[in-house]
Amino acid sequence: MPMGSLPALLIKHLLFSPVHYDPAQEIVYKGEHRFSYAEFRQRVARLAAMLKAQGVEPGDTVAVMDYDSHRYLECYFAVPMIGAVLHTINVRLSSEQLVYTISHAEDDLILVHDEFIPLLAPIRGRIESVRKFIRLTDETSDESDDRVDPAGLNFVGEYEQLLQAAQPLETFPDLDENTRATCFYTTGTTGLPKGVYFSHRQLVLHTLTSLLTLASNGTQGRFHREDVYMPITPMFHVHAWGIPYMATLLGVKQVYPGKYIPHQLARLIETEGVTFSHCVPTILHMLLNDAKNADCDLSRWKVLIGGSSLPKALCRQAMGRGVDIYTGYGMSETCPILTLSQLSDDELALPMDEQIERRVRTGRPLPLVALRVVDAEGREVTADDHAPGEVQVRAPWLTRGYLKDEKQSERLWAGGWLHTHDVACRDHTGSIRITDRTKDVIKVGGEWLSSLELEDVLMQHPDVSEVAVIGQPAARWGEIPLALVVPRAGTEPGERELTHHVREFVDKGMLPKESILLKVRFVDQVDKTSVGKTNKVALREKYLT
Amino acid sequence: MPMGSLPALLIKHLLFSPVHYDPAQEIVYKGEHRFSYAEFRQRVARLAAMLKAQGVEPGDTVAVMDYDSHRYLECYFAVPMIGAVLHTINVRLSSEQLVYTISHAEDDLILVHDEFIPLLAPIRGRIESVRKFIRLTDETSDESDDRVDPAGLNFVGEYEQLLQAAQPLETFPDLDENTRATCFYTTGTTGLPKGVYFSHRQLVLHTLTSLLTLASNGTQGRFHREDVYMPITPMFHVHAWGIPYMATLLGVKQVYPGKYIPHQLARLIETEGVTFSHCVPTILHMLLNDAKNADCDLSRWKVLIGGSSLPKALCRQAMGRGVDIYTGYGMSETCPILTLSQLSDDELALPMDEQIERRVRTGRPLPLVALRVVDAEGREVTADDHAPGEVQVRAPWLTRGYLKDEKQSERLWAGGWLHTHDVACRDHTGSIRITDRTKDVIKVGGEWLSSLELEDVLMQHPDVSEVAVIGQPAARWGEIPLALVVPRAGTEPGERELTHHVREFVDKGMLPKESILLKVRFVDQVDKTSVGKTNKVALREKYLT
Repeated sequence: MPMGSLPALLIKHLLFSPVHYDPAQEIVYKGEHRFSYAEFRQRVARLAAMLKAQGVEPGDTVAVMDYDSHRYLECYFAVPMIGAVLHTINVRLSSEQLVYTISHAEDDLILVHDEFIPLLAPIRGRIESVRKFIRLTDETSDESDDRVDPAGLNFVGEYEQLLQAAQPLETFPDLDENTRATCFYTTGTTGLPKGVYFSHRQLVLHTLTSLLTLASNGTQGRFHREDVYMPITPMFHVHAWGIPYMATLLGVKQVYPGKYIPHQLARLIETEGVTFSHCVPTILHMLLNDAKNADCDLSRWKVLIGGSSLPKALCRQAMGRGVDIYTGYGMSETCPILTLSQLSDDELALPMDEQIERRVRTGRPLPLVALRVVDAEGREVTADDHAPGEVQVRAPWLTRGYLKDEKQSERLWAGGWLHTHDVACRDHTGSIRITDRTKDVIKVGGEWLSSLELEDVLMQHPDVSEVAVIGQPAARWGEIPLALVVPRAGTEPGERELTHHVREFVDKGMLPKESILLKVRFVDQVDKTSVGKTNKVALREKYLT
Repeated sequence: MPMGSLPALLIKHLLFSPVHYDPAQEIVYKGEHRFSYAEFRQRVARLAAMLKAQGVEPGDTVAVMDYDSHRYLECYFAVPMIGAVLHTINVRLSSEQLVYTISHAEDDLILVHDEFIPLLAPIRGRIESVRKFIRLTDETSDESDDRVDPAGLNFVGEYEQLLQAAQPLETFPDLDENTRATCFYTTGTTGLPKGVYFSHRQLVLHTLTSLLTLASNGTQGRFHREDVYMPITPMFHVHAWGIPYMATLLGVKQVYPGKYIPHQLARLIETEGVTFSHCVPTILHMLLNDAKNADCDLSRWKVLIGGSSLPKALCRQAMGRGVDIYTGYGMSETCPILTLSQLSDDELALPMDEQIERRVRTGRPLPLVALRVVDAEGREVTADDHAPGEVQVRAPWLTRGYLKDEKQSERLWAGGWLHTHDVACRDHTGSIRITDRTKDVIKVGGEWLSSLELEDVLMQHPDVSEVAVIGQPAARWGEIPLALVVPRAGTEPGERELTHHVREFVDKGMLPKESILLKVRFVDQVDKTSVGKTNKVALREKYLT
């Protein structure tokens, strides 16, 4: 480095100076395999050398299809550190979406876990950019030696064996910090998947700022150097919210659980002493309600909830188990973290109901995040307005656009702000509270009615297990709310019972009066997207046409 | 901002998104004046507008001569935010050094506190770049209205009055993040003062990374959102270690003490509930030993020590008062923080002596700091070597060179590493331990003897109040250590007593055997530099020639 040149912000710097210095600190896979940080760093260097030996060049794209594992973490570092792009493939995509995303990203090499080989086998002929496949397996090496390749992917080898055969790479290049490091696809409920991408600089700044915010809270929910970390958000999903990078920078013990099986997750929390995780509400719901987990001690566990809004009832249930629960907000396009709902020490002293209110809110913007809420007239909404608007953001770590899609990129960044398409109100604690997606808001006689708020109220009825509220066209009002309700097992609620429940909230001034127009329909299940969110597009098609 | 452009890292972003959202949170001056963060932000906007109205253009240099104050904090933000450079003048410089630094920095405007007007009056004719002066005063505005200008500086006005008259600036420019934000001068013990400078990007990255490290420790010494902050390192000294920027980003209560008067500092700690400060050992020594502070409750106070090494005796004394004390390391050239000596929860459970050992060590490098220790042969020293070497660093926030001094800049960055001229050992906790300055090491018969280690041992003798050890030329050995000792009031130690004390440490293997060559000379005082460090150059001149 010549005199006076400025070191770039590179992913390799996150790896080589953890704050907590303990080369013996562990990275654990499924409670079965353990690696020290010293070994981990050496494995990253071996993986980098191995990928280069397989012909991976700067700018090439290396894709991964795996459950949450130490291997995935190694790829988070090694792939960008040699100047290649890590494509984290969503293994829940349909065949057609897989063909589209793999081809669109121009993947050169795919590392694929045994369980996902059947997804690739039938489309092998249609993903022409892919030159090589590497097998990821949880089987012992003896078994894998003998294994044949029924899918015809012509593996160049098995990950563990290739790693052991490689000489660790000694130095990693000093890349331009704007070099692309990762890419992945976001599947809306309509249209083709859209690719987003992030540079070394963006991932480093996201790591520093998010970790600073998580760590600096007084007491509640903070992530620090004595924690034990386990992700329960898939690593293909927005870098597991970037938290594996933060955990590595902190130098804490990390536990990667493999496939998510509720009672095994709970067992890992107990046996490995996990204190910090993050997940979507659905997974938390499964974990808390699995009968096998009834005796599991979760009282040292902090969990950050994101992906969709946290129902108050679920928040209360988690708190009843001693869980320190709160929420974050972000999206694929935003790396992802934009806001966190951390409670101050004063707020921690509030009565349960008020605390829940604070814990489930969307939260305050992180430092360096400029966030505004803009109403239908393009006017910026303040806390005094009590009115909803669209959340628009700027921050150093937002995707610069959609991959190879200028038109959608321009729409995303219209007016120089990234449009989240989320609808929120501001409050006097500096927080925003997401009330809906712009396209899911129910427009009743000119007023915006939040489908999420109605769902939240309905979930508080003891007979409701799941619910989705959509807008049903209605002559006089334009739209009225329609609730699709899955009753709790063993109950048979009627429509009148539930509309009465909603009316009580209207009477208390906790819901807009238009809510009394609610219709209810009982259903067996509510359709979900590939990442477990309610699929309202599918629901509208199913129940409104 | 056009679609896809990347937001820059700018000081204005630190101001506008504090993590702790409380517009009523206070910034306090001397316990007498209180401003909310909302007012503070408005004052920064007024100051910016006022400076522009006074003709300050991007690239101009605005200098400040003030005690630690809310005004100084306002300048930390407003000056760089309009694209000008903030020159933090060391008010302890000599007349000649003031003339040199003000002229060398080409200051355009100086904001000067009443107390420092007498420093400027006699040199006014020699600082030709300065076009305007603004008066800073703690007097009420009635008094200041009537005040004449005995120094002939022709003030354009008084700060508070000018601020009140200004309309707040509404938007701040989107500067290039590499725009210079600050500059100041480091006065070695030889030669002319040397100017160092830092960009917006560097200050933002220093803020994020240092704060992340301070905040993320498990328990010991962490700086978080419930803290109350008071600097006790002058704000002209390396941006008060950059911590005012961190405190503002956190959104915590801040207390600015004005002139440092030990019993007033202690009073502020009690009355304002200060929980986090930083200072040099000398100030801590004065604060702990001022008889007026004997009853002061310091048990909630955390203090980060830097500037020079923390004597174990002082560390023990502070801990006896319940103070959570530890150390940081850095220098003017490094923005400044490079390492912190935070203790893990395990280390906090160690016996007192071992804890002190950890608390006074120089500490572990921050994330993004690459640090190596290089011996006289240019070989990198490891923890297994038990040998000292020079500390060399790279990080995104180091000065790119000395202002307008290419030759010294090249020496500073020789070989692409910043040379600290500090001598340190590595240990197995990942820490370094500074043992000396390269030029202060005593070379006894080919061995490097640390003057600081000898001073630390001598300070543990009950009759020693202050001590400096320098190398005295000696025919046979090259150099032998000479201790200049200020005896504690009321004691009369003899040379034999002190050399015996040192021999005990040699016998226990805690000092190299060359230490027994120590000579002792009793003196009335030990000469200090303008920032309160032992001035060994002056001592060598005085006692060796």
